Amino acid sequence: MTTTETRTPTLTPQERDLMHAYWRAANYLSAGQIYLQDNPLLRSPLRPEHVKARLLGHWGTTPGLNFVYVHLNRLIRQSGASVLYIAGPGHGGPGLVANTYLEGTYSELYPDVSRDEAGLRRLFRQFSFPGGIPSHAAPETPGSIHEGGELGYSLAHAYGAAFDQPDLLVACVIGDGEAETGPLAGSWHSNKFLNAARDGAVLPILHLNGYKIANPTVMARLPRAELEALLRGYGHEPYFVEGDDLPGMHERMAATLDAVHAEILAIQRRARQDGVTERPRWPMIVLRTPKGWTGPREVDGKPVEGTWRAHQVPLSEVRRNPAHLAQLEEWMRGYRPEELFTEAGALCPELAALAPQGDLRMGANPVSNGGLNARSLDLPDFRAYRAEVPVPGGVDSEATRVLGTYLRDVMSGNMDRFRLFGPDETASNRLDAVFEATAKTWEDETLPVDEHLARDGRVMEVLSEHLCEGWLEGYTLTGRHGLFSCYEAFIHIVDSMFNQHAKWLRTSRDLPWRRDVPSLNILLTSHVWRQDHNGFSHQDPGFIDHVMNKSADVVRVYLPPDANTLLSVADHCLRSRQYVNVIVAGKQPSPQWLSMPEAEAHCAAGLGIWDWASSDRDGPPEVVMACAGDVPTLETLAAVDLLRGAFPDLRVRVVNVVDLMTLQPHTEHPHGLRDADYDSLFTTDAPVIFAYHGYPWLIHRLTYRRRGHANLHVRGYKERGTTTTPLDMTVLNELDRYHLALDVIERVPRLAVQGARTKQALQAQLRRHRQYIEETGEDLPEVREWRWTTRGE
Amino acid sequence: MTTTETRTPTLTPQERDLMHAYWRAANYLSAGQIYLQDNPLLRSPLRPEHVKARLLGHWGTTPGLNFVYVHLNRLIRQSGASVLYIAGPGHGGPGLVANTYLEGTYSELYPDVSRDEAGLRRLFRQFSFPGGIPSHAAPETPGSIHEGGELGYSLAHAYGAAFDQPDLLVACVIGDGEAETGPLAGSWHSNKFLNAARDGAVLPILHLNGYKIANPTVMARLPRAELEALLRGYGHEPYFVEGDDLPGMHERMAATLDAVHAEILAIQRRARQDGVTERPRWPMIVLRTPKGWTGPREVDGKPVEGTWRAHQVPLSEVRRNPAHLAQLEEWMRGYRPEELFTEAGALCPELAALAPQGDLRMGANPVSNGGLNARSLDLPDFRAYRAEVPVPGGVDSEATRVLGTYLRDVMSGNMDRFRLFGPDETASNRLDAVFEATAKTWEDETLPVDEHLARDGRVMEVLSEHLCEGWLEGYTLTGRHGLFSCYEAFIHIVDSMFNQHAKWLRTSRDLPWRRDVPSLNILLTSHVWRQDHNGFSHQDPGFIDHVMNKSADVVRVYLPPDANTLLSVADHCLRSRQYVNVIVAGKQPSPQWLSMPEAEAHCAAGLGIWDWASSDRDGPPEVVMACAGDVPTLETLAAVDLLRGAFPDLRVRVVNVVDLMTLQPHTEHPHGLRDADYDSLFTTDAPVIFAYHGYPWLIHRLTYRRRGHANLHVRGYKERGTTTTPLDMTVLNELDRYHLALDVIERVPRLAVQGARTKQALQAQLRRHRQYIEETGEDLPEVREWRWTTRGE
Repeated sequence: MTTTETRTPTLTPQERDLMHAYWRAANYLSAGQIYLQDNPLLRSPLRPEHVKARLLGHWGTTPGLNFVYVHLNRLIRQSGASVLYIAGPGHGGPGLVANTYLEGTYSELYPDVSRDEAGLRRLFRQFSFPGGIPSHAAPETPGSIHEGGELGYSLAHAYGAAFDQPDLLVACVIGDGEAETGPLAGSWHSNKFLNAARDGAVLPILHLNGYKIANPTVMARLPRAELEALLRGYGHEPYFVEGDDLPGMHERMAATLDAVHAEILAIQRRARQDGVTERPRWPMIVLRTPKGWTGPREVDGKPVEGTWRAHQVPLSEVRRNPAHLAQLEEWMRGYRPEELFTEAGALCPELAALAPQGDLRMGANPVSNGGLNARSLDLPDFRAYRAEVPVPGGVDSEATRVLGTYLRDVMSGNMDRFRLFGPDETASNRLDAVFEATAKTWEDETLPVDEHLARDGRVMEVLSEHLCEGWLEGYTLTGRHGLFSCYEAFIHIVDSMFNQHAKWLRTSRDLPWRRDVPSLNILLTSHVWRQDHNGFSHQDPGFIDHVMNKSADVVRVYLPPDANTLLSVADHCLRSRQYVNVIVAGKQPSPQWLSMPEAEAHCAAGLGIWDWASSDRDGPPEVVMACAGDVPTLETLAAVDLLRGAFPDLRVRVVNVVDLMTLQPHTEHPHGLRDADYDSLFTTDAPVIFAYHGYPWLIHRLTYRRRGHANLHVRGYKERGTTTTPLDMTVLNELDRYHLALDVIERVPRLAVQGARTKQALQAQLRRHRQYIEETGEDLPEVREWRWTTRGE
Repeated sequence: MTTTETRTPTLTPQERDLMHAYWRAANYLSAGQIYLQDNPLLRSPLRPEHVKARLLGHWGTTPGLNFVYVHLNRLIRQSGASVLYIAGPGHGGPGLVANTYLEGTYSELYPDVSRDEAGLRRLFRQFSFPGGIPSHAAPETPGSIHEGGELGYSLAHAYGAAFDQPDLLVACVIGDGEAETGPLAGSWHSNKFLNAARDGAVLPILHLNGYKIANPTVMARLPRAELEALLRGYGHEPYFVEGDDLPGMHERMAATLDAVHAEILAIQRRARQDGVTERPRWPMIVLRTPKGWTGPREVDGKPVEGTWRAHQVPLSEVRRNPAHLAQLEEWMRGYRPEELFTEAGALCPELAALAPQGDLRMGANPVSNGGLNARSLDLPDFRAYRAEVPVPGGVDSEATRVLGTYLRDVMSGNMDRFRLFGPDETASNRLDAVFEATAKTWEDETLPVDEHLARDGRVMEVLSEHLCEGWLEGYTLTGRHGLFSCYEAFIHIVDSMFNQHAKWLRTSRDLPWRRDVPSLNILLTSHVWRQDHNGFSHQDPGFIDHVMNKSADVVRVYLPPDANTLLSVADHCLRSRQYVNVIVAGKQPSPQWLSMPEAEAHCAAGLGIWDWASSDRDGPPEVVMACAGDVPTLETLAAVDLLRGAFPDLRVRVVNVVDLMTLQPHTEHPHGLRDADYDSLFTTDAPVIFAYHGYPWLIHRLTYRRRGHANLHVRGYKERGTTTTPLDMTVLNELDRYHLALDVIERVPRLAVQGARTKQALQAQLRRHRQYIEETGEDLPEVREWRWTTRGE
């Protein structure tokens, strides 16, 4: 433990008093936001009608957040450091709003919330008020990249922001409630992936205010020795600032911030100038202050300050209970607003001078607004990486391996602003060509047997989907680019993180001052159909369904069927902004269908008829075989192959869907097809056999308003899985070529009789399959060796 | 750090040699499962056709898992301890199968896998083979409650299993890969919630084999001092067993296990006999061994043993590459199977004697099979807790608060087998009546200001949805009962854990020897419609969609509209087994609709016409107003009230849905209505305005095959949210009474003209609403004060 000794005071008495006054102003504005809709400067006695009808907000964490903010302001002024402030307890929104208002950024972005009494009234009234602003740090909050409504991701976001920003200091306040979450607990080890020479610094400030909503926190009640051991075990040198004595706390916080900042600069100097490569012991601060510090000590005879009762609104009956009203007035007047604000209602100039200027204000740090003019990626021409496809199905390729060669050059062309993230799966997902451009980040010891590890590597591998997602969120929200590749089934680990990020992006779209940030790109591979060997626990294509619930403005889902379409989609996604792009693609050797020009055209349309596989030139199709996903496409084409062999005159149309959003009505999604276009592809009367990668009902959900919906028959994953073979996975779920062909025979009227023999043959083939795998553990040779041979008409 | 000194050897040389031989047998059988389909005892030279065509499985972690198993066997034999073995690296399935086979449990449960050469052949062949068994520890694996396919939950499961089982020792092997995940990192603090007097013990065994799939692990590369600090910070006393020297490792592991077991017994004695209440420093073991220990040292000139290359199948070309084949034979013969197995192929008797007997065998521990004959809950009559509802809408009540009184008595009647879990939200979710029966578990210091904390409390509160879910999974899988209450939006944090648990339950259903376990009950409250004050980040009803993707055999979703229906549903869920039950219910004061007899009948049917609200006695309904969820029900009834006031002759039918599964075809779900029944409720031709709690498309997905689907118009949450008022949340999503009434006017043909004035009035009312909340921040008084007054016909 380190407690900064204060022999020579860090602060002059005057400086200390001014900082204290600034903090009082922040606390005053915080309480004002929670309570008042009028009389913002208490220029008249407080009356019930000055108080909002609904009292909402979280007071408890706020004075601590304000305390940190005020002290960081001093550090910035003194050192010129660029500081990003992340408030893990983002529900302390009033504090961040108060501080960005005091420093002036708020009024610059929202001119109607001016720096005068009228502006103060608006500031107070809008908080947690319909049509106003949320009670949490939100996209609306200047300087924020982190909402903190759903707890757990502050530290991961902080590291994501710090990567590749060598001059940035990310101050991350971690609530002791949040510290109990799994994702936060896992995030401490992020320091093993931060390079002191190349990346910025993260300063974790563990804020022990002792209580959650109704309980003490684990961290705050740990015996001191255990807490210290834990933080050292995380690789940090903890500095403790503890108490509620004033001005002592100011003095100790200032001295401690100076000390940790000096230590951070020393670490960076050693790494950058002296070439020290050993992972440093980064400093951190443990700030122990009372919950609801400076708020009411007791309410109705019960202790509040320093207890869980201070969590939200300490005085809840203010409008009805005169004693509460009086106590609120006493509390707020205790901050002496008349000393803090001018007659016009502006912050007094000697206090305003305590804030940093311009972009150094934490509410104005460009990093927090997508890096403001963040640079796009310098992308190579994806066409150069194409698989040569002389004829459809003529060659095999591994789609993600091809993508890897493209990503290698994306990486080498953007060594300051592109990273690849994955839970120990980059090679397993066959993207390992990137290791020709860079290694995996690793700051601890390496051994001769290790491969592709380097302290300055740019591939981020850690066995935590939470960290991959959180780092990437922080990285893109600060204007950089990346791709997270993940086993499809395990992306559900970050379902809720995706939710929160999508909501952030959605809300940001409505804020003119928020710059678009690079999209968050997720590549799902090792997908459900090829997890036959890992079994049922690894088989889950439901993330797509989850994504589709979010606003159409911000989500995109692509299912490229082969390598060239994957390249085209990836290029598109890496250029895009303000989306979550989900790409599902296989890694196994598979037939390639489209040449690069065909792939580009197909991806641009999002879906289309594959003429070369269709046989409907001479009349309307008798059946439409639709497919989305690589394995469904393969099985569909194999079924078409079978059918066209058996029924040479059958008019089959093959439609492949890359962009799932096209299936929706265009009124629901900007990519959605107009009904006429949909009808011309799928017809309004022919049976449509749709082989889909995921849960079949999603296709129904997307198309139930289409005219031909009643004719739509979807095959997909229906939660039948086990440890078996690739073909058998499709057979279990009736998505295989034989079942698809049987579906056609069943649904094309004239095949009822004509198809009887073929039907028997297909059923026999299914029995043969069952017998063969039971004997050999392998799929039928004719399935493994099948290649598309039918030529287009 | 503690390393057990071995002055006096723990093992006699003979004992040591026998244990080593037993371990060799386990390793031999593990390798055999991965590679062989014939010649299981290598009685003839190994030939390519003895080897499986597809080589699958994870060798790397397996020898370590076997090592631990063999040593736990000794501990059990010596001490008579009841030990549950949890393998965090569950992908080391071959090891658990091998050991349960060696101890005899496997053949008892699967008689065809007999303890002879034929059984060995089957044992080998079935592994990761179509129609056989998964490569992970799975429901099929005797003694397992944990799959370990998706990493992160072993330690939470271990604690869940240990709660309320004072005589149980849960040995939990944590892989150093898994240790990087957030959920695992957060799980270490579970020891703050384990009561040494009442609960069993958890012995974490952190297995540092150094590598994941392709990378070193963070934990294995931490400097020793940091690792020790971390583990002490977690509240443990670490005992290190490190190396690869034999027989030294056996001696040190045995001595260490004896020491930690003695320490555990001493802790329990102090707590149980001496009344010591201070949280103990529980021992744990750090086992550092080479990955793929005893496997091939080098393959094709590259190091394998002790490296990431040992993760899966060290020799991959065995069938094609004679050198690999020879190396496999040499490796397997190195275990000297001829010394381990009898002529008949049974384990030699002197080795078989090393396994514990009967239920003490870890594969046969009754705890691992749902507690075998786990006791049901002793439930009070839920009717006794009813809200008195003299007339529909006549009284207000808070549904979850009423539920709380019932849960209080469920708790007090089942103090050995029922627990309540929640992330710091039991009181916030208004279930706080339970604190009359018991407190919240808290093993650390308490302060006077704390409320409802006790070392022997039975309400488990920690700010980690992962821990709540993981503990409850472990608790129910070992035969006990519980309820997890959670904010609706944040249940997505455990989406993937739900997936894995549902898959476990699904697979278990097919295993005759697996006993049904109590259902996992999730109560979602503080739901989307009443998170107006917390804002957009707290608004997400998508967990229901997520749940509906899983097998109909194991998932149930209930949306009780009031307190009495909630009581009835809760009673049903607490009696059920082998499901995940999701209940969505409100906590805010709301009108009550059904008396208890009505509620019971309604819940038994799952849905039904509310005659008292309907006006279709004199003819077929002109419109069906359907609703599911408490807020949609309220808004629907308010809309009906408006409509019946405006159009006294309108024939409206109100259908309320409690059990969402009833909407599906009965061919899809056992609760699904037959078409005729569906048609008689919803009609086949009247417009149906369906007000639904969640994302509207789910209702379409469930009903798209129904005859009347084209007439179905669903309102629900369409991802429009912000910080606002309760009514405004429904207005933003067009689920409010005014929009619902407008929907009816639009869809009932004769109202096109007749309804024009009402339509204008409703639109004016919506404008009034907007204006009123902008002025006051509150909902219209007539909405806040609205009560159902229309009498049934």
